[in-house]
Amino acid sequence: MAFPAGLVELIETLSQHGVDQAVICPGSRNAPIMLAISRNAAIESFSISDERSAGFFALGLALHSKKPVILCCTSGSAALNLAPAIAEAYFQEVPLIVLTADRPQEWIGQWDGQTIYQERIFGAHAKQYFSYSTKSNESSDEVWHRNRIANDAFWSAVSAPQGPVQINIPIQEPFYPEKGAALPVAKPIRKIQKWIAPKSLDIATKTFIQRQISVSNKIVITVGQFPKNAAIQSAIAALMKKGIPVLADSIANLSRIAFDSHDLILANTQTWEGLQPDLHIHLGKSFVSKRIKQFLRSNTEKQEWQVNPHPQALIADPFKGLQHVLEIDEEAFLKELVQLNISEKQKDYFQAWKKADEIIAAIRAKGINDWNELGIYQKIAQALPQSNAEIHVANSLSVRYLNWMNFVPKGIEVFANRGTSGIDGCLSTAIGAAQSNPNLVISILGDVAFHYDKNALWNSYIPNNVRIIVMNNQGGGIFRNLDGAKDLPELEAFMETQQVFHAENTAKDAGINYISVKHTNELLHALSHFFQDSDKAQLIEIESNSSINAAALAQYMALFKG
Amino acid sequence: MAFPAGLVELIETLSQHGVDQAVICPGSRNAPIMLAISRNAAIESFSISDERSAGFFALGLALHSKKPVILCCTSGSAALNLAPAIAEAYFQEVPLIVLTADRPQEWIGQWDGQTIYQERIFGAHAKQYFSYSTKSNESSDEVWHRNRIANDAFWSAVSAPQGPVQINIPIQEPFYPEKGAALPVAKPIRKIQKWIAPKSLDIATKTFIQRQISVSNKIVITVGQFPKNAAIQSAIAALMKKGIPVLADSIANLSRIAFDSHDLILANTQTWEGLQPDLHIHLGKSFVSKRIKQFLRSNTEKQEWQVNPHPQALIADPFKGLQHVLEIDEEAFLKELVQLNISEKQKDYFQAWKKADEIIAAIRAKGINDWNELGIYQKIAQALPQSNAEIHVANSLSVRYLNWMNFVPKGIEVFANRGTSGIDGCLSTAIGAAQSNPNLVISILGDVAFHYDKNALWNSYIPNNVRIIVMNNQGGGIFRNLDGAKDLPELEAFMETQQVFHAENTAKDAGINYISVKHTNELLHALSHFFQDSDKAQLIEIESNSSINAAALAQYMALFKG
Repeated sequence: MAFPAGLVELIETLSQHGVDQAVICPGSRNAPIMLAISRNAAIESFSISDERSAGFFALGLALHSKKPVILCCTSGSAALNLAPAIAEAYFQEVPLIVLTADRPQEWIGQWDGQTIYQERIFGAHAKQYFSYSTKSNESSDEVWHRNRIANDAFWSAVSAPQGPVQINIPIQEPFYPEKGAALPVAKPIRKIQKWIAPKSLDIATKTFIQRQISVSNKIVITVGQFPKNAAIQSAIAALMKKGIPVLADSIANLSRIAFDSHDLILANTQTWEGLQPDLHIHLGKSFVSKRIKQFLRSNTEKQEWQVNPHPQALIADPFKGLQHVLEIDEEAFLKELVQLNISEKQKDYFQAWKKADEIIAAIRAKGINDWNELGIYQKIAQALPQSNAEIHVANSLSVRYLNWMNFVPKGIEVFANRGTSGIDGCLSTAIGAAQSNPNLVISILGDVAFHYDKNALWNSYIPNNVRIIVMNNQGGGIFRNLDGAKDLPELEAFMETQQVFHAENTAKDAGINYISVKHTNELLHALSHFFQDSDKAQLIEIESNSSINAAALAQYMALFKG
Repeated sequence: MAFPAGLVELIETLSQHGVDQAVICPGSRNAPIMLAISRNAAIESFSISDERSAGFFALGLALHSKKPVILCCTSGSAALNLAPAIAEAYFQEVPLIVLTADRPQEWIGQWDGQTIYQERIFGAHAKQYFSYSTKSNESSDEVWHRNRIANDAFWSAVSAPQGPVQINIPIQEPFYPEKGAALPVAKPIRKIQKWIAPKSLDIATKTFIQRQISVSNKIVITVGQFPKNAAIQSAIAALMKKGIPVLADSIANLSRIAFDSHDLILANTQTWEGLQPDLHIHLGKSFVSKRIKQFLRSNTEKQEWQVNPHPQALIADPFKGLQHVLEIDEEAFLKELVQLNISEKQKDYFQAWKKADEIIAAIRAKGINDWNELGIYQKIAQALPQSNAEIHVANSLSVRYLNWMNFVPKGIEVFANRGTSGIDGCLSTAIGAAQSNPNLVISILGDVAFHYDKNALWNSYIPNNVRIIVMNNQGGGIFRNLDGAKDLPELEAFMETQQVFHAENTAKDAGINYISVKHTNELLHALSHFFQDSDKAQLIEIESNSSINAAALAQYMALFKG
């Protein structure tokens, strides 16, 4: 049988490495790859037609499985439609193994259908590129090479920092086995196993840390985006108890453990001087809050460390003052820190942050009763389950509201596509994540992000545990809050891009429950059962007015500006 | 005022070159570019939120204007969402000037939001890449450099073969002019004008052509994708009259002038021997018909020419036998050919094609009355207006049915995204094309292509002259017609990807008329007024069964297999 050589072995090798999920986008050129995947009993396969959505769906799967997910598409522009998700996976460091079917090399540029330049098509956003020959007259060297590629692709995807890799697979016709024929049985393959020992702190590093901590009186720890991790949470709790303030964005998954009101505290620049650290230690990736970056960048006197067990080749310096990169495990570092003595002045410094945080908490506690997004977010927060759920929050305003509103219960993990901060796949990622999670998966996003990615619902994989909250303010509401932007005559036409669509018809197509909410009573009524078990996924669309939202937000911010 | 330097001048230079349409995708980083465009009175601006759709919309604009269209997006994954349209524009040779806003160089890779690697992000699919500085402390060399980039970008886009270019524009804050402030007035710019003399035939070329024609007895001309062109049409008509058979795909815009039933004629391989040419001359780009390629590739004895005034750097050789590239204007070549004498044997050869074509015509004339896509296409063809309309046909089955059904009236131009043959932007391209065309713009596509690109309707630019025909066979119907594919147990789940969505809700969101059709009488009734003027765009969804369609098609094909 003329089935393309090496495909069954490629998939079998990945499978033996533990890869057990694949997203397959339909096509003809990639049909043999599809067969090699879907007939491998150890791999669960999903079929998604819109490649842009499929890419983010695969990202969502991998966020949970913590293993590489196979993403397979046909030749031509299909691969380009995957590119937004590949870039997000690269910067969010999520492992994906992308199998792009291609025409044989000799047919590129010959006016054949669905033929483009696929070599290194993801550019800098794929960690590694491989070209995988499926020609059948292979020498033993070629067989050995294919086996190496299968192993290399896996290890490149999972080696820290993790990320996506591309295997481009030129395939000649015929694509299909004969009627009723089975695929060739995989020839014996070799699995190359790596053993990576966890890093622990050596004497020199310990000594350095101890010495610096002992001479610092204003140590602050900041945590950017970070997956939920119980060991990290307890170490952070211990540090807070000890007297080292920890500032964490809503995407740091330290809700109710660390301080989370830095964006509001620092809205009052008069607080800046008293709160400046002499040693700033950063963990995790990016911050949503722009103000905390401005605050820390303005201090050029302090020491600055970054704890990062797996920095990328070029080290990120988001606060512009980085001096020491501690390439060590975060948990090991924090446990070391907990054991060290801190000064009395450090305890005063902690109290300064604590007082500022309490002022914010008091203002927040008054509640927001008018019909605007601040009040809406607050009411949703009060109705959220305390655990057994996860939130996928879109970029732009949604993730910022989470930061401002002390939104997330301690038991809930927050995900956000902050790798590229794109609008393009927030909902698809949530739907992907919901596949292997029996808990509630809550997607919070604005109307523009929803419609941009509405094909997230154009598949047959919408489980009942999905809850979608669409904040409909008829356009890109964030622009109304940006100084400069808000006063432009072009605001409505070219920035906010007012749009009149509702989510109802999309929900109807997808066969999920739709609830429309336009004022407080409706919202409270809907929330009273929205997060309960149901026999269908549910979507709630909450309408508010973007001018009123912007005014309310400005008023709220003014409270903190002292 | 701290408005980014050089932006007003960039847009003014493009405008002075005649660029007068722009598609702007909303964003913050690109807001200054948006302002420079939208405040330039000579440029018509469109705002489209989904970059993937926006890219194809711009392509549609440029198909009509025959001028470069500006396409402007913000930083981050926005540019990646444009990539499918850029690849299509590259292979279809349509000029676009893509302005990608970026962070300043020093902020790349620093965990800032919406920051990815944008340099040369379209890879081989952009003809040219430029980095455009907007820093304000410019030297006169830098001002000169910026002016050169503006001129170079325009000329690169429009120089044959035309195509897309990228200008990446790093922009620092502040993005916005002060409240109420006007933009800076454009400084004097220099417009570099090129004069490109049309090529005419020199003596050596004329002699070569004359000599070869005089010794050939079986000359055939094939025309792949080609824009509608009255001069070409009359030259082709003259050649047909003279006795040189011309075979043209439905996308060659030679309907009712050249033979168009080659795909059916050649279904009977017994016809091949008698129809083989001794001189094959190809014009235009790719063929949809796979059979004509197989037929011509199987003949390694013939002479083969390609007439192509602007070949790309690497010459396409789709029939595997190319010997002579005639880098001359097609019209000039055809007019030369009309004047030459041909042999009596050549006239016999023409008759052989004519007879074969008449057999096909007789079978077609019997009509198809059952409810399947062949019959549906035939009824649509009978109802089509004879002129003042254009058709945008999707890839996959749609464009093939046009080929089989002698579908297109002479007065109608056919467009198809055959550059990459992607599924991704067929409808958006049609909507873009409808902007500057008072005539009917008819989009014909399957249900999968429709839903993939449904955001084509998520904007406020759907003119009343749009007519959308969705052939709903609940999935990717083409796979049922492919030998090999059709017998796979994975057909429904992973190839055809059966889908249950209808277009009704999407049409409702977009505020356009929706007509559902499920049998012949409904279809005839709907078609009786579907192409008439209306106060809204119209969408007709025609449902058929993919198994029945495949069986009917197989039966139809069998008629020609002799």
